[in-house]
Amino acid sequence: MTTSTTGTPAAAGATGTTATGGAALTPDDLPIRDELRGQSAYGAPQLDVPVRLNTNENPYPLPDALVARIAERVAEAARHLNRYPDRDAVELRGALAAYLTRTTGTPLRTEQVWAANGSNEVLQQLLQTFGGPGRTALGFEPSYSMHALISRGTGTRWIAGPRREDFSLDLAAARAAIAEHRPNVLFVCSPNNPTGSATDPADVLALHDAAQAAGPCLVVVDEAYVEFSHHPSLLPLLEGRPHLVVTRTMSKAFGAAGLRLGYLAADPAVVQAVQLVRLPYHLSSVTQATALAALEHTDTLLGYVARLKEERDRIVTELVEAGCEVVASDANFVQFGRFADSHATWRALLEHGVLVRDNGLPGWLRVTAGTPEENDAFLDALRAVLKDGDHLAAAGA
Amino acid sequence: MTTSTTGTPAAAGATGTTATGGAALTPDDLPIRDELRGQSAYGAPQLDVPVRLNTNENPYPLPDALVARIAERVAEAARHLNRYPDRDAVELRGALAAYLTRTTGTPLRTEQVWAANGSNEVLQQLLQTFGGPGRTALGFEPSYSMHALISRGTGTRWIAGPRREDFSLDLAAARAAIAEHRPNVLFVCSPNNPTGSATDPADVLALHDAAQAAGPCLVVVDEAYVEFSHHPSLLPLLEGRPHLVVTRTMSKAFGAAGLRLGYLAADPAVVQAVQLVRLPYHLSSVTQATALAALEHTDTLLGYVARLKEERDRIVTELVEAGCEVVASDANFVQFGRFADSHATWRALLEHGVLVRDNGLPGWLRVTAGTPEENDAFLDALRAVLKDGDHLAAAGA
Repeated sequence: MTTSTTGTPAAAGATGTTATGGAALTPDDLPIRDELRGQSAYGAPQLDVPVRLNTNENPYPLPDALVARIAERVAEAARHLNRYPDRDAVELRGALAAYLTRTTGTPLRTEQVWAANGSNEVLQQLLQTFGGPGRTALGFEPSYSMHALISRGTGTRWIAGPRREDFSLDLAAARAAIAEHRPNVLFVCSPNNPTGSATDPADVLALHDAAQAAGPCLVVVDEAYVEFSHHPSLLPLLEGRPHLVVTRTMSKAFGAAGLRLGYLAADPAVVQAVQLVRLPYHLSSVTQATALAALEHTDTLLGYVARLKEERDRIVTELVEAGCEVVASDANFVQFGRFADSHATWRALLEHGVLVRDNGLPGWLRVTAGTPEENDAFLDALRAVLKDGDHLAAAGA
Repeated sequence: MTTSTTGTPAAAGATGTTATGGAALTPDDLPIRDELRGQSAYGAPQLDVPVRLNTNENPYPLPDALVARIAERVAEAARHLNRYPDRDAVELRGALAAYLTRTTGTPLRTEQVWAANGSNEVLQQLLQTFGGPGRTALGFEPSYSMHALISRGTGTRWIAGPRREDFSLDLAAARAAIAEHRPNVLFVCSPNNPTGSATDPADVLALHDAAQAAGPCLVVVDEAYVEFSHHPSLLPLLEGRPHLVVTRTMSKAFGAAGLRLGYLAADPAVVQAVQLVRLPYHLSSVTQATALAALEHTDTLLGYVARLKEERDRIVTELVEAGCEVVASDANFVQFGRFADSHATWRALLEHGVLVRDNGLPGWLRVTAGTPEENDAFLDALRAVLKDGDHLAAAGA
């Protein structure tokens, strides 16, 4: 501990020592859990570059009218901020149920919807309830890496199930993995992140049935990107399937990554079950107020989604024209390749001022659909990079 | 699932059946973890009564100038809400470090402070890092019940350590419990909730040293109520003790229970360690903006704290005059008794329109210090209740 009262992280990093002159401690010097030793914190690099297309954010800022409405609703909430929030977020859950009902045609009630700080917290609560020590979760990789991370973080054994070479679901192999590992929680990400394709409803049903046959299993369909899909939501599958859960987020389609509002739809018993593990008053009054304001502006925000879908399709077309392989995308991002050294291509794009995502998948990169101008900048940079050097892998490599 | 799109929880509860005519499922019908079976969700009753003194909320609404500043800062944040929040909340942690430094004289830097959605989430992150399956946490009960609940929720074995009959810490017995159970995480709540008394710094040091002697152990000093104490903060103890953590909250002294902003101060290595388990982007932009606005108004808010301390002391005095036993309070609440049947007394007070807290501690109830008018209403109700019936336990009972 130093005596500085104005120290910044940069300044502290520069000294790297404590006030008493000893070397600064690291987490590994503390009695942390063994499985955390040597780990580094999850997260994409937050670099300051002109065109950031790496975290699947929505490039459109909220419209002024919505910003004003957020300020209004938050001010109203702030007048009672000395009181705890509605622990069950009933008004918000009702508004989310109405949104799902209206946009998917699947009638959903307040008691079937639950909300938390980002879909990550929703997933954590589901795993604390249905997974945990002595239990197993299975997902088909590559997929959203937080499924594995939150499983491990809750003490749930994680099994990486297979996909085909083209990242589509191999139903026979998937069923075999389910029969072998008999998971307590099964993740199906549709559209899948980072690869982008939606899963066929018939395949989801087959996985659900296989998982129930292998032992009761909570099947979590992660629809974080479904508003961008060419295919409809899987919400109609909930009917009559109390072990099925669909998770959603306001981060992408609602352009509200900064809000951290994830939610789920399921049988009311699932909602009651996660209430056994949720931290009391987990969702602040300001979060509830902001989310309610955003839901009032659904139509405007879905207009931006329509624009992004067009841009996403344009990116796919132009990437193919540039000689890339592209995975069919139902999301607001596109996975493209194949590169001889995808990290070298990532770096080359960064030198052109464009940040895309390297998910560590050899040969592939992921780009988020931005504004038309951002997408032009990305496509121009990529064409320049491809022209400059030998980036693409040899065909069939 | 019904076909209603406007159903409310009340309406759903009234039917209690699914659309297909079957009985509604409960969590016990689902493959939830065995230890959750038969459990009910944590939480004080949220009853609509004139005087609510049951959850240790600050009775003073935020001043108008602060409400306006929150709206301003949140509007600013909302303009970038399509982007993820600062994952490390650096500005907010700096402001919290400055607040601690200024009010306690203990110099603290940004890297020594971490923030999350309520101190509950801070505690959960600490337990995920330093507790968890195969590890043990120890606290001295009665104490803040979430210490035990979050321990169990993270798979950490919970040991209920002892206190004296008068709720003070029995140092010899505490040391014996530490030596016997060799906890990985030790909780010291000061001022203690629900009993109200602060712990002597020498005792905290003795517990810390005993815990280290028994094996490395993270010692968590929960100072949620310290701004209301007659005694100074235990933050100076951090110096040279990397296994010591002090947790705080903005819920009480900052009158911001609805904000859900908890934080900790510790060695920078502890902060780095919890970053290994924190959900990425756990703290929303609106939460960060609102907390920063509140911190700008610290002096006004601490003025309310001064008023509440006076009221708390008055409640103690008047309760004693009314014939009650009272635990010395350093918090914004008072534990009082002893009642022959504390739940009957709780109900009698409720019939007078005053909601206090029954923590299930036989003979005792807890009342939050409210506004002078609320406290008068409570004290009048209690005097009426005591006059009406035989509520107090026989002396020495």
